[in-house]
Amino acid sequence: MTAERVVLINAFEVPEGDDEVFLESWEQARAYLSAQSGYLATRLHRSLSPNADFRYVNVALWASGQAFEAATSAAAFANERPAYPFHASLYEVVRTDER
Amino acid sequence: MTAERVVLINAFEVPEGDDEVFLESWEQARAYLSAQSGYLATRLHRSLSPNADFRYVNVALWASGQAFEAATSAAAFANERPAYPFHASLYEVVRTDER
Repeated sequence: MTAERVVLINAFEVPEGDDEVFLESWEQARAYLSAQSGYLATRLHRSLSPNADFRYVNVALWASGQAFEAATSAAAFANERPAYPFHASLYEVVRTDER
Repeated sequence: MTAERVVLINAFEVPEGDDEVFLESWEQARAYLSAQSGYLATRLHRSLSPNADFRYVNVALWASGQAFEAATSAAAFANERPAYPFHASLYEVVRTDER
């Protein structure tokens, strides 16, 4: 099954000053998704610079693309996701260099 | 020193069909950067969908923001970076959920 694992990378456009509102809505989305089948792990990154194109980037691990699609296409999830513009896609790791 | 570590996330806009050219230039940039002080690790992701806003996303670990800035602001690096639009910033991890 390991070979089917996919990485969700989601880059959010969050204006300065909206951190608290964004984090609250992100936590709500995480609570929903982490209860779904196939969710494995997540890591949320905040930019050090306030001028980043994407002040928050989420990198999550799912057991498969199908599991992720099933979890996020459910009607119930529509009310749970952060109300900020985002750029999300599923990825595979094609190069690693970890010493 | 661990507390100073930063995550570079770089989202590249790479048209379909340009994978070989992109990967070659990315490898060249990695070869340059991995020889610089403070470089720790990197992981390159390719989107499963050809329609992703960012078909490649690099997630790298650096010992500090200063080390990254020194490595990438050097004049020599200008010739090494992939010639594709990119969105790069340094990040800190603010939430983790790894079971």
